[in-house]
Order: sequence, then C-alpha cells, then structure tokens
Amino acid sequence: MTLPLAGLVVLDLTHVLAGPFASMTLADLGARVIKVERPGIGDDTRAFPPFKDGRSAYFAAINHGKASIALDLKSEDGRETFERLMARADVLLENNRPGAMDRLGYGWEAVHEAYPALVYGSVSGFGHTGPDAKRPSYDMVAQARGGVMSITGEEGRDPVRVGASIGDIAAGMYLTQGVLAALLDRERTGLGRRVDVSMLDSQLALLEHAIAIASVTGKAPGPTGARHPSIAPFETFHASDGLFVIAAGNDTLFEKLCVTLGLPISDDPRFATNPARCDNVRLLKRLIEAVTLEHPRAHWIAKLTAAGIPTGAIQSVDEVMKDPQIIARNMVVDVLDRNGRQAYKAAGNPIKMSGAEDKTSRAPAPDLDGNRGEILRWLDGS
Amino acid sequence: MTLPLAGLVVLDLTHVLAGPFASMTLADLGARVIKVERPGIGDDTRAFPPFKDGRSAYFAAINHGKASIALDLKSEDGRETFERLMARADVLLENNRPGAMDRLGYGWEAVHEAYPALVYGSVSGFGHTGPDAKRPSYDMVAQARGGVMSITGEEGRDPVRVGASIGDIAAGMYLTQGVLAALLDRERTGLGRRVDVSMLDSQLALLEHAIAIASVTGKAPGPTGARHPSIAPFETFHASDGLFVIAAGNDTLFEKLCVTLGLPISDDPRFATNPARCDNVRLLKRLIEAVTLEHPRAHWIAKLTAAGIPTGAIQSVDEVMKDPQIIARNMVVDVLDRNGRQAYKAAGNPIKMSGAEDKTSRAPAPDLDGNRGEILRWLDGS
Repeated sequence: MTLPLAGLVVLDLTHVLAGPFASMTLADLGARVIKVERPGIGDDTRAFPPFKDGRSAYFAAINHGKASIALDLKSEDGRETFERLMARADVLLENNRPGAMDRLGYGWEAVHEAYPALVYGSVSGFGHTGPDAKRPSYDMVAQARGGVMSITGEEGRDPVRVGASIGDIAAGMYLTQGVLAALLDRERTGLGRRVDVSMLDSQLALLEHAIAIASVTGKAPGPTGARHPSIAPFETFHASDGLFVIAAGNDTLFEKLCVTLGLPISDDPRFATNPARCDNVRLLKRLIEAVTLEHPRAHWIAKLTAAGIPTGAIQSVDEVMKDPQIIARNMVVDVLDRNGRQAYKAAGNPIKMSGAEDKTSRAPAPDLDGNRGEILRWLDGS
Repeated sequence: MTLPLAGLVVLDLTHVLAGPFASMTLADLGARVIKVERPGIGDDTRAFPPFKDGRSAYFAAINHGKASIALDLKSEDGRETFERLMARADVLLENNRPGAMDRLGYGWEAVHEAYPALVYGSVSGFGHTGPDAKRPSYDMVAQARGGVMSITGEEGRDPVRVGASIGDIAAGMYLTQGVLAALLDRERTGLGRRVDVSMLDSQLALLEHAIAIASVTGKAPGPTGARHPSIAPFETFHASDGLFVIAAGNDTLFEKLCVTLGLPISDDPRFATNPARCDNVRLLKRLIEAVTLEHPRAHWIAKLTAAGIPTGAIQSVDEVMKDPQIIARNMVVDVLDRNGRQAYKAAGNPIKMSGAEDKTSRAPAPDLDGNRGEILRWLDGS
C-alpha cells in the first residue's frame, strides 16, 4: 500500500485557500508538503474562525498533514534555507501577486535556471499575463467577474454567491492538475515547467453549458433557481414535508417517473420530448407537485429510487456528514490534535485509489514554524 | 513546444459530463483521446440543446479534439477492437453504473490482469463502494445530497442550484487528478491503478469551510445570499446603476476601503476586527451602500482598484466572454467545423504552461464513429 505521490516533496509558499487546497490534495496523495510561512503571522487563515482550543478549524481543515517552517525570504538566513529546500523539492507552489516572486529573485526564469527540474506552480487572481495581472482578487471577485454568480440564484432576483468557495477551489484543482501533468512530463524530459493558473480563468472553465448557450443563441443565460436550464424535469419539488430533487435526464426516465407518480402525461405532446418539457416546465412542475405534495420526502425518495429514477434530499452540511454513503466512503475524516485525539472533522480524499490506504484520520495542521528542527535536520542529512 | 501529455492515449467510455470533462482536460494537455461510443446513439449529449447546423454545441464544448469510434461491447467484433485498443492505451475512463463493466468482463480486476500497465479511472454518482453504489445520479442530485445547495441561495428562502454543473465537473476534475497521479506512480512501478471517484464525494470535498463550521460549532451553516459566511465586508453592494462586489478580506484592506469611501469607521469597535464586522454585517452593509449608491459601478471599481482593494462587476456570461483579461488569457477559444471555420465558442484551457502552445482554436467534436478508419489503421500499424 503506497500512496501514488510518495517520495515527492512540495515546497508550498501559498496561503489562504486556492494554493493550500492544491497542496492538501497533493499531501492526501502522498506528497510531503513543506509549508513556508511568513515569520510572525503565517498563513492568514490561522486567524479565520471557527476556532477550537485557540486554533483555527478553518486552517486545520486545509493544512492538516503538512509541515511548517517560517522563513523571511528577504533575510540572508531565510534565503539560504529556502534555496536549499528548492534544491531538494520537486514542486514549488506560490500565490503571490504577479511580480512579487521576481522581486525576491525567485521568479520562474531565475528558479528554472538554478533548479531546472523543479516544477513551478503559480496561482493568482487573474494570472501572470494580461492587463489585470497585478490586481488583487478573492473568491467573491472571481465568482462575480467570472460569470458563475450571474447564473446562480432565483429568476428575477439578485444573483447569489456559490456557498462553497469555488472561486478559490476550482483554481486550486486546476493547479493540482497542471502540476501533476508537468511532473509526468518531467519523467521524459528531466525538466520542470511553469504552471500559471488564475481564479478568473478557472471560473470560466466551469461554464461549459452557459458558454455554449451564449455562443449559439447570442443570449446570456440567467439564474434559474433550483432548475437545470435545459433539462426537465430536473429541479426541486415540494413533498408534504419539504423539498427534494428529481432529475429525470432523458425520455426513458421521464416515462418511468410518470408511471411511478401515476401521472399519465408522457405521451402528451407538451411533455413527450425534453425540448417540449423545457418549454412547458412551469406547468410540468405544477403537475408533478400536485402529486408529490401528497406524501413526505422519504416516501418519494424510496419509491423513485426503487424505480431507478435519480432523486435525493437536499441535505444540510451536518446531514451530509452523517450520510451512510459518505461514511462508507470515508469522506469525513478526523483531524487529530497533538495528543493524537480527534480535534475537528474535515472532508476526506475524494480520489479513491487501489493500493493506496484511505486513512480515516489526518495528522494535525502544523503550528507556525512547528517543523523547523526536523526540516533542517532533513536538509543536513542529505 | 510540446504539450505535457503528448504521446498518452486515453480510451474514453464515458458520456454526458463528468467523464468527458476529465478527458477534455487530458486532451487539452496533449493526450490523444479515443471516445468509444454506443452504436446508433452515442453520447447522450449529442442530443442536448443548443444546436447549430444540426449539431449540439453542448456536445462540441466538451468533446472537441477527441476521436470517436462506435463499438458494441457485447459483439465479438466490438470486443476484439476494444481489447486491441486497451492494449495500446495508457488510460481507460468509464462512468457506467457500478457492476456494468464487470458484467461485460471489463471490470478493474480482469482488465488489470490482462493489461497491467493500464490506469483505470471510474467516475460514478456514489462510487463503487457503500450502500448506494448502484443508485443512479445526476448533477442536481449530487449538488442537493452533497450539501452545496444547502449553503447556496438567499437567507430564509429555498436553496438554489449552482448555475454551473459542479456536481459533475468537480468529479471530473478529481478524476483527472487521480488519473494523473496514477500515471506518475506508474513511472516507478510499471503498474496501473484503479481510480474511483464519485460525484457525491466530490461535492463534500468542496465544503472546506462549511464542514469546519459544522464540526466545531455543531450547527450547520445555511445560505448567506451573496455574502461570505465568515469574512466581512465580502459581498455585493448596490451602486447607483447596479450591483458590484467588494471583498476586503483583512483589516488592512478594510482600512483602505474606509479611506477610499470616505467612511471613517475602521476604528469603531463594531468594525475594527473581522469577527466584529461579521457580527455587525447588516449595519456595515447599509453604511457602505449609503456611500456606494452615490455613483455608478464603474466609478467604484476604478477607484477601489486604484486603492488595491479586490472588487469587480458581476458579469453575465456574454460579458465575461468579452472581458479583456479573459481575451488576453485565451480563455475563449473557437471550436472549428469540418471546413476549418469557427462554429462555436468554448472555454479555453485554464492550465497555462511554459513550453506548451496555448492554441486559440480546437478541432471539431467528432461525428459518431467518425474516426473508425483512422483508429483501425493506427491499430494495424502497430
């Protein structure tokens, strides 16, 4: 049982969310992640609520299992250690404002010349090229400017933010993909590459359907509440005790749905095809809800599931954390404290892999500079 | 200029969105993707609107640059060709209902025995283990059951769906990461691994912040409209002509914001720290909007940007597609038709990499079985 990235060393200068999310995935896949933090303050998220025993659960959720060393990259001592670390690392990750690494003498060109095998991964608000490269950004700005907010929310009302921080997370996931592809390429060439991922670009990459619609129809799609814009029925419905989801993505499923609900409308020309159902989606919803309001959610979810129709509850976060399927998949793990006791819960690793142990707990998130001694000993031992 | 995955062959049995999204990224990074489709119908999304010249722009947006061969995996002829393809491929992707590949004789164990170097990537609604492994799913079910919907929407109103199909896309992105990590591992061991990613697990993995909150406070977070749940000010504000975003993620940025708005409240104990600002977020919003309503969005975005404060418009999809930064980053590409003319627009590749050409157009999406001849010739030429 060996994790696929065992033996890889990731030197991680990133903070807050996008970069640390990428290095969390790399750590979960077996890489050794050394977090290089600013002396004194460290990662901003060390101060983000909620706290437990004086430590940020937010920071712990993203940084478990990493090591930390505080280095002042403007001091001689800090630079020497950092350079020795670069000489040993396979990947360098950074999310400084474009230009900042160059000013430190650690821009891509300089680093590539000195450490040609090092893969250099950058994540930033807008990327390292283009007119807005040097602007600051945050998740909310990426979600807004990148178009995802404009299609999220209720029809006729103001758009809403996606509750999960996908402005950061999507960029972190693309950074991981780029770094892994560059590492694979390095196996052939012996050379590292520079990966440059932006939060704004990554939002656009999520818009598959919306771009296709805008490109062909000339009209930008708007928010459609809980409904899919071009499949029907594919939305939330009221049962007698609350909302649940039915997703009948093709004609066969729709026919099964009609039979299961006792609603003989699948031959009606207004509902016989998906385009027709989309044209008559409000009427369709009222007809389905006329039936679903008769019984509670659990009744319908069991009945529709038995008929093979995709359906489900809208679960709150605490409900999801107790979901038997989520438990069976080890998707909620314990983050341990320094005494090996459970301190927080965090999301598990969604990449399940043969021959790789899927641990049920994670080592603690590091204290700031908490691993200096062992990191320096490791460097000396080379 | 070589793409990092040049030379890799991906045999892609997936359809609809999660799997094809993964193989799209692999293709964008240089892999040769051979899409194996059902004879007659092919990928369901070939029938998804919108259409142009009789072809689905939705299908084209996700499947450009791939090759297609139609194979009946229950016929002798289809199986023989498929097995010859597996012998040449580096990666097999599939998104059949758990159990279906086994019934075909192409489950992980059998394939691994016959083709030990092949990486086997599966994506499904709930994963290949656990009580609900065999249930059907769609994006909407994953978003609902996975908790993301419960934190997306307006406070006190019904939750909404994330406008982008992140139920599928997040799973596709984790599949890509898992496959790349397995390929890297294969460089050392010579052996492929099995990657098993589920849509439900992948939703949970997006909940960083929400799980931390639920774990420590014991209370599940709800939707907070356009506002971040634990940073303030970090939301939308009305200017005289509409909404825009201000994301002042730390005290320094908040102080700059107060100076720029001419609103001397940064020393007020109700607003001096982020926790205090979160406690008084409604009052804070009214105070800021009292000022921002004086001028149009463009005024504020220019002024705040000059002061280094993260800000931005809420752009519609057509506005994003024309955004100068997006254009400069080549994030909207042309999908060509068979005559080499621009047919549709699609999202570009957000993974920018040194030494890798970032093409401004994509080869057409394949016709069903449209590459049979060349694929068979390639197999024979081995």
